[in-house]
Amino acid sequence: MRKETRIDHLDTPAVLIDLERVGHNLLRWQQHCDRHGLANRSHIKTHKLVRFARRQIELGAVGICCQKLGEAEVMADGGIDDIFVPYNLVGRAKLARAVALARRIRLAVGCDSAEVAKGLSAAFSAAGLEIEVRIECDTGARRCGVADPESALALARLVDRLPGLRFGGLFTYPPPGATAAVATFFARCRELFSTAGLPLPLLSSGGTPDMWRAQEAVGVGEHRAGTYIYYDCMQIAAGAARLEDCALTVLTTVVSRPAPDRCILDAGSKTLSADRSPGHHGLVLEYPRARIVRLSEEHAHVDLSDSPERPRIGERVRVVPAHVCLVSNLADRVFGTVGDEVEWDSAVDARGRVV
Amino acid sequence: MRKETRIDHLDTPAVLIDLERVGHNLLRWQQHCDRHGLANRSHIKTHKLVRFARRQIELGAVGICCQKLGEAEVMADGGIDDIFVPYNLVGRAKLARAVALARRIRLAVGCDSAEVAKGLSAAFSAAGLEIEVRIECDTGARRCGVADPESALALARLVDRLPGLRFGGLFTYPPPGATAAVATFFARCRELFSTAGLPLPLLSSGGTPDMWRAQEAVGVGEHRAGTYIYYDCMQIAAGAARLEDCALTVLTTVVSRPAPDRCILDAGSKTLSADRSPGHHGLVLEYPRARIVRLSEEHAHVDLSDSPERPRIGERVRVVPAHVCLVSNLADRVFGTVGDEVEWDSAVDARGRVV
Repeated sequence: MRKETRIDHLDTPAVLIDLERVGHNLLRWQQHCDRHGLANRSHIKTHKLVRFARRQIELGAVGICCQKLGEAEVMADGGIDDIFVPYNLVGRAKLARAVALARRIRLAVGCDSAEVAKGLSAAFSAAGLEIEVRIECDTGARRCGVADPESALALARLVDRLPGLRFGGLFTYPPPGATAAVATFFARCRELFSTAGLPLPLLSSGGTPDMWRAQEAVGVGEHRAGTYIYYDCMQIAAGAARLEDCALTVLTTVVSRPAPDRCILDAGSKTLSADRSPGHHGLVLEYPRARIVRLSEEHAHVDLSDSPERPRIGERVRVVPAHVCLVSNLADRVFGTVGDEVEWDSAVDARGRVV
Repeated sequence: MRKETRIDHLDTPAVLIDLERVGHNLLRWQQHCDRHGLANRSHIKTHKLVRFARRQIELGAVGICCQKLGEAEVMADGGIDDIFVPYNLVGRAKLARAVALARRIRLAVGCDSAEVAKGLSAAFSAAGLEIEVRIECDTGARRCGVADPESALALARLVDRLPGLRFGGLFTYPPPGATAAVATFFARCRELFSTAGLPLPLLSSGGTPDMWRAQEAVGVGEHRAGTYIYYDCMQIAAGAARLEDCALTVLTTVVSRPAPDRCILDAGSKTLSADRSPGHHGLVLEYPRARIVRLSEEHAHVDLSDSPERPRIGERVRVVPAHVCLVSNLADRVFGTVGDEVEWDSAVDARGRVV
């Protein structure tokens, strides 16, 4: 919906997206991928908006990544036709939905165990379909994923053998600073798979913190980054972005000055999420030496003791969140802005799709 | 909407509310208030459901408390006609909405500064209305609130004098363990107000952690508790509840067993919120010695090293969240259950109303 309004007219808290910075961030990363021959598969968890997923594809992304099936369904409804869900789909209801989704788009899914592979095989072979299955590898994040290259090969052999499945390669979501570990893990996989005579169609890595070094993991053909569209304090801390790259801010109002060295903003963990960046819960653009030291549900608690300038009650300030993906997931609406103008406002299409 | 279904049939993650425990929790607290002559003003931030707000009032609550105006509007639409918003309302848009709301229900609002009082006065006197204003006092939480009884008196005098305002008393939201501090702060206020000849219509305290001791703060006539409807790990840690009192659980599926001593559930910070209780992010009912040590957006990372019993992939387990209010705010739908049956499912009426 297009509205003729200015940021000044919005009530707070409001989630603002600087469209020029979004454009810059999307373009810069796509150009980096193109330069290094990396396929860019954008993770939509950060924006959850069909309009930005479409834009990522127009710019050259090979497809998108959705962490949950419900998000993928929303994106498919919005016309996106190449989606990777890097998640273990378990249970009859989800498998039936995956089959239905695979009938209308190109779908690939993740898997890190024989149990998950067998469930997928039963559902897709019964439907007379074949689904691309990529095997998740743990390169240090200690989340999901097989623990070592030998286990990756063993599970790939099973996937290759089971009806209804097509082995699509390996993927990982490394912790920050693990580019070398990814390279080592995948190099050993290439040896093992080569010896075993099993083709390895794709190696895929992900994450924004180390994406500018993604090409250093030799053999990786695809990178899945999400936060790069907006960035946030965590990404600044990781060295992936500068403050002036951050495209999403939360417009807030100072509602209390309970003491000379403290102020309270009208956005708390229900808006900014309870996640934190090292040392704080977000940066206040207008008061760079202020620190958001604590969040309650509806209040940000700001320490002004190091800030020579201090805001008055009623003043509106903008916060760069610690972790922006969770902010998108909390917002019912977001506002696309250029300068002081609001270009559009929109529901967050895939907000809350956790099933 | 009534559905004939069983918990077994729900896909995960799903937020379940044990209706028998809700009934027990609501009744037990109301009886405590009745026994001690305390007015129970239930805070709806925990459930955000009109049906439970109505039930709290039927059982004897004098009204409800909503932290944001948007929540109050939803509750007023649902037929609740006595609402206290303990928040500094700042800015023209919110003041206009407060005036509109005050035309249709009994509304009281909070205030901790002359700036906020003057804004309320301008809006309500221009509308030809009078609004009840209660002054917030900081009894140790270091959030909003005047810092000392002398400042409370000074601000009360201003409120008493300004057109369109009616001084409604003092309120506080103390930190855990501060019942004695509340009593001391309010005792000094009673002396000061008495000497000044300014009537003190009400002293109101709040919070679930110390609610069973609320009557020890002599002079407090009203208590605002919210979490007592569901309880959570934070309230167990505070000694306000036992595990078997917890009424809200998140039904999840084990989607990965990446190592013998770890498992991954399909609910992360987008479902359970990133808040934590001391030592963990939630308890797994079926595996009491398992510990949720970390959350990513769509995964709970469970340490099983102390757990002799360990779940298999595909098994469904129930999690008691660390902080339940944020879980309500994240859930699009919740399921009311009795035993294994789902009695109803419902949107969370006031979810996401942060403005």
